[in-house]
Amino acid sequence: MQIQNTKMIPAKGMAVLKAKAPLVPYSFERRVPREHDVLIDIKFCGICHSDIHQARDEWGASNFPMVPGHEIAGIVSEVGSKVTKYKVGDKVGVGCLVDSCRTCVSCREGLENYCENGSTGTYNSTDRLTGDPTQGGYSNKITVDENFVLRIPDSIPLDVGAPLLCAGITLYSPLMHWKAGPGKKVAIIGLGGLGHMGVKIAHALGAEVTVLSQSLSKIEDGKRMGADHYYATSDATTFEKLQSHFDLIINTVSAKMDWNQYLQLLKRDGTLVILGIPEEEVALGAFPLIGKRRNLAGSLIGGIKETQEMLDFCDKHKIACEVEVIPAQKINEAYERVLKSDVRYRFVIDMSTLQ
Amino acid sequence: MQIQNTKMIPAKGMAVLKAKAPLVPYSFERRVPREHDVLIDIKFCGICHSDIHQARDEWGASNFPMVPGHEIAGIVSEVGSKVTKYKVGDKVGVGCLVDSCRTCVSCREGLENYCENGSTGTYNSTDRLTGDPTQGGYSNKITVDENFVLRIPDSIPLDVGAPLLCAGITLYSPLMHWKAGPGKKVAIIGLGGLGHMGVKIAHALGAEVTVLSQSLSKIEDGKRMGADHYYATSDATTFEKLQSHFDLIINTVSAKMDWNQYLQLLKRDGTLVILGIPEEEVALGAFPLIGKRRNLAGSLIGGIKETQEMLDFCDKHKIACEVEVIPAQKINEAYERVLKSDVRYRFVIDMSTLQ
Repeated sequence: MQIQNTKMIPAKGMAVLKAKAPLVPYSFERRVPREHDVLIDIKFCGICHSDIHQARDEWGASNFPMVPGHEIAGIVSEVGSKVTKYKVGDKVGVGCLVDSCRTCVSCREGLENYCENGSTGTYNSTDRLTGDPTQGGYSNKITVDENFVLRIPDSIPLDVGAPLLCAGITLYSPLMHWKAGPGKKVAIIGLGGLGHMGVKIAHALGAEVTVLSQSLSKIEDGKRMGADHYYATSDATTFEKLQSHFDLIINTVSAKMDWNQYLQLLKRDGTLVILGIPEEEVALGAFPLIGKRRNLAGSLIGGIKETQEMLDFCDKHKIACEVEVIPAQKINEAYERVLKSDVRYRFVIDMSTLQ
Repeated sequence: MQIQNTKMIPAKGMAVLKAKAPLVPYSFERRVPREHDVLIDIKFCGICHSDIHQARDEWGASNFPMVPGHEIAGIVSEVGSKVTKYKVGDKVGVGCLVDSCRTCVSCREGLENYCENGSTGTYNSTDRLTGDPTQGGYSNKITVDENFVLRIPDSIPLDVGAPLLCAGITLYSPLMHWKAGPGKKVAIIGLGGLGHMGVKIAHALGAEVTVLSQSLSKIEDGKRMGADHYYATSDATTFEKLQSHFDLIINTVSAKMDWNQYLQLLKRDGTLVILGIPEEEVALGAFPLIGKRRNLAGSLIGGIKETQEMLDFCDKHKIACEVEVIPAQKINEAYERVLKSDVRYRFVIDMSTLQ
């Protein structure tokens, strides 16, 4: 391994200096590319709900100052001496991971997201080599090992491509793993940043797609994105009509809800996949599982190889996120709007506005 | 369909006349075989924990008088005019089901246990043709459609074969469905009537088998049955040692327990299968599922085709239940002992003792 290069590159970004504080302009440093690193000029970064959880230390163990952001899209501006995958000028992205142990069974299978030794998060984590805190994409530059960098296809603009790196792969991975496709009835719970990607990807995979949303307020958007059916979960008859109906249900909502009720919407051998972590535990009965051999499962983002597959799939099927581009000065306001579900469907920060 | 034959055959058995009452001698009638029925002289019937739940109306909606019993082994004594599968003198068994709709997708796939229109239970259920209550195997005779009768291989004595019809298939089905076999680490929670069958079958399938039991009191039995490892769950270090260790865990214990703790013993993509229904719901967190894409699932007995496969598998691998044969007069005492887990490993009633 190369001896650590101690020279640093000045960077600017938006950081949270302590838990629950607003984001403020912040100057810090990125490492000069190591042999296998690329330096990226960040153009856009999406705002993920988990940024807010971590900025507010709602999951515990947050490190401050914190530059959030793991939906990163930009252009390669410099490459290390042994980089083979990218060259200066390439359109690239970085998602939730910037490193992993690379030797465990999960890493060897390309599922670095499930690294048995703990993957390195893009921010709020610790660099495996230096022990320094990692800092994320609400910034103008980032240095990342080429093995954790994704190629963004030419047809996908960087602003609408950025959220694919988290929201896109978080839906693509379970839809592929549990085999959404022709002949399968798939439901997506919630039509937000994650959910709208789920509808588009499941539709492109050929599944019959149903949105289960609190109200019908976004029904036109949902159908335009590819939903075949759209039901309000505030209407109790929805749960009667759809008993034992779906092969796969993906729950994109992290608020606490009655999983028993949704399990009963699955056919025999169907699976309800949980993507978000509610703050409280959920009371679960055995009967909805046993009566039809149903499954309750979880899924966490996706591996690097399948993230590239997802980007290429989105290229082929003309899929991108629907975004509201904001300047860096509006991040705090955007956080409040995310908490009220007042975004269609993802905020993306334009890094040219950083001061 | 044949016009209903109203002639009946006198039978005797042991019944519960009202919820929580003790079992008492009971005279009733069985139907004369219809075209596709066989009449069986019952020789032995196992005592399943669910007999007790239903006799005491702990699941609600029990019908009385009730003759429990769905682990039935006997000899064919008469066949209907169109029966092709069995002849007088054959060794046969009947499990938890005596009928189903036969037309739904699950029935057509041989999974009558998951019949979309509700299968007909061997007792405490309603005959699809006559609407009469069904009565179970704590009796000397039963009339059953040949399609719900199993062939008990010559090598398996009827007393140790009887519990295979419920305890055996309840373990065989999930072990096969979730692919227990060579290279797989399988844990069985609880070494009771179900659990000991799980150990024997998983071992015969070639899996590396671990018993997770409250104490080490049955360790010698467990190892003799085929367990490679045996841990006490009362020892907190068990849960540390076995983190992320198993591919498959089958929970045979219906008492409430912390599923989160057991989920964390699964590797990535592992499955915890619940067979029993605790009286209360269990508080479940999303993290144990999401962090390693784990699954929580349920399984309910098995279909007729796979029950025959299981019996043939047990024949080939010399597997039978370990039983304590009792006379009919000791059923009430046996119920109390089952509730105290004081049985190694299944009570079987000798029907020649019926008075």
